[in-house]
Amino acid sequence: MNAAVRQVRTRRLRDGAASEAADAVAVEEPLEVRVNGAPFAVVMRTPGHDVPLAAGFLLAEDVVRDAAEIAAIEQCDDVDDDARGNVLNVTVVGEAAARLAQRLGERRQVIATAACGLCGRRTIASLQTRAASVRGAWTVPAEVVLGLPAALRATQAAFDATGGIHASALCDLHGRVRDMAEDVGRHNALDKIVGRALLSGRLPLDDALLVVSGRSSYELVQKALLAGVPLVAGVSAPSSLAIDLAEATGITLCGFVRGASMNVYTHPHRVAGL
Amino acid sequence: MNAAVRQVRTRRLRDGAASEAADAVAVEEPLEVRVNGAPFAVVMRTPGHDVPLAAGFLLAEDVVRDAAEIAAIEQCDDVDDDARGNVLNVTVVGEAAARLAQRLGERRQVIATAACGLCGRRTIASLQTRAASVRGAWTVPAEVVLGLPAALRATQAAFDATGGIHASALCDLHGRVRDMAEDVGRHNALDKIVGRALLSGRLPLDDALLVVSGRSSYELVQKALLAGVPLVAGVSAPSSLAIDLAEATGITLCGFVRGASMNVYTHPHRVAGL
Repeated sequence: MNAAVRQVRTRRLRDGAASEAADAVAVEEPLEVRVNGAPFAVVMRTPGHDVPLAAGFLLAEDVVRDAAEIAAIEQCDDVDDDARGNVLNVTVVGEAAARLAQRLGERRQVIATAACGLCGRRTIASLQTRAASVRGAWTVPAEVVLGLPAALRATQAAFDATGGIHASALCDLHGRVRDMAEDVGRHNALDKIVGRALLSGRLPLDDALLVVSGRSSYELVQKALLAGVPLVAGVSAPSSLAIDLAEATGITLCGFVRGASMNVYTHPHRVAGL
Repeated sequence: MNAAVRQVRTRRLRDGAASEAADAVAVEEPLEVRVNGAPFAVVMRTPGHDVPLAAGFLLAEDVVRDAAEIAAIEQCDDVDDDARGNVLNVTVVGEAAARLAQRLGERRQVIATAACGLCGRRTIASLQTRAASVRGAWTVPAEVVLGLPAALRATQAAFDATGGIHASALCDLHGRVRDMAEDVGRHNALDKIVGRALLSGRLPLDDALLVVSGRSSYELVQKALLAGVPLVAGVSAPSSLAIDLAEATGITLCGFVRGASMNVYTHPHRVAGL
């Protein structure tokens, strides 16, 4: 068994026929990187090779420049049970210690390319304090969900030009696109449409379907949760943590939505016939 | 002209024939989000819809929960010329101000899902102070580069199982995979293999080729630069900022490497026949 992969149960739709099936998903868990005992970063990653991950991350952050500046990389045991195995402390020496102080002194409290919304939170349990669950006591035909990727694709002007940009769309319960955005970051595309809904007083989005162009990772489901969106459909795979969060908060999570097929990983009651 | 798209020149290889061609790439630029005047985050994004992006980002970060807590979102003019249009200040009021203080007080100095390595730096020029350029005065046959995606794919055990996980590999100049890693985050996969090279004293990687499973974004090229890798090949599109950084630092950047075709966006001299 590979620690990078987890088996889950899914409701599978294939050419009109629904069945229960097993599926393998990529594991996603937060890794807290401490440097000289102080919290430095939380990285959402697939477990495994955490020691080189921490080293490479600190190289990219320009804290360390040479192996000699790393005295040790060790698991932290002084952590809650649910964080065990997910906290590393890196002991840096020499000029790396001075660089660390500089990094912390820069006081850029949150640096993100993919905004994760973790911000000091490390567990799913603590996340749920703010938005316990979504509403949305409706059902849509499977055909509506199956049609979402094509509806999104039809609106993607920048993808047409470049072949390389992500997109998200909010759709109504008939599958019609109500708002969409494109961005090099999937999370940004979602932030843009959720931000518009926020600014125009339309939250929570109880009657909306969300479709995303790529994988469904934890942060996308978390952003959907904060916006109150009850159904998320992705053309590619969800991560393990995305499934866990969707399960815990009542979100219907659909993956591999392609042609006449899809997998529904959580709360299939919102999709008729599954 | 769409601000999300930029035209670039590329050396194109199609079935053995090389030519100069125009290509459209997605624009990627840093957006600095300030809250009540203080730097809060830098987000790598495609320009456009920055106001809702900032609002949605602050919702996801649980700074704001309601439109009424946002008094204004405005461009900042007190910035360097090269940051103009890329800095927004969000004025928050009421309980959001208290939440902001709490976020900053949590002292998680760097929160990242996609580690960007920006860390206080905002321009390509400031980035180059540490690693001015890569070395690597060699040439490889085009066939070696064209073969990299298949070589990477052959090593992807977790992708075989899940259909949804990213990967990066370091290859030698014959295109043989020397190290690889899989992760839900492309940047993590790269950090893992660069971290191993760092810890075993193998940096800089002057004689290595890097292949990545997805798009070539800015942070991937930046990580390649810090590891000294002279050639980066992606199966999908590069972003504008990835091209700018590769051009400025001597990195050969190849995109859409598929079958017998690819585009070489920068420094094609390392690929024979282009």
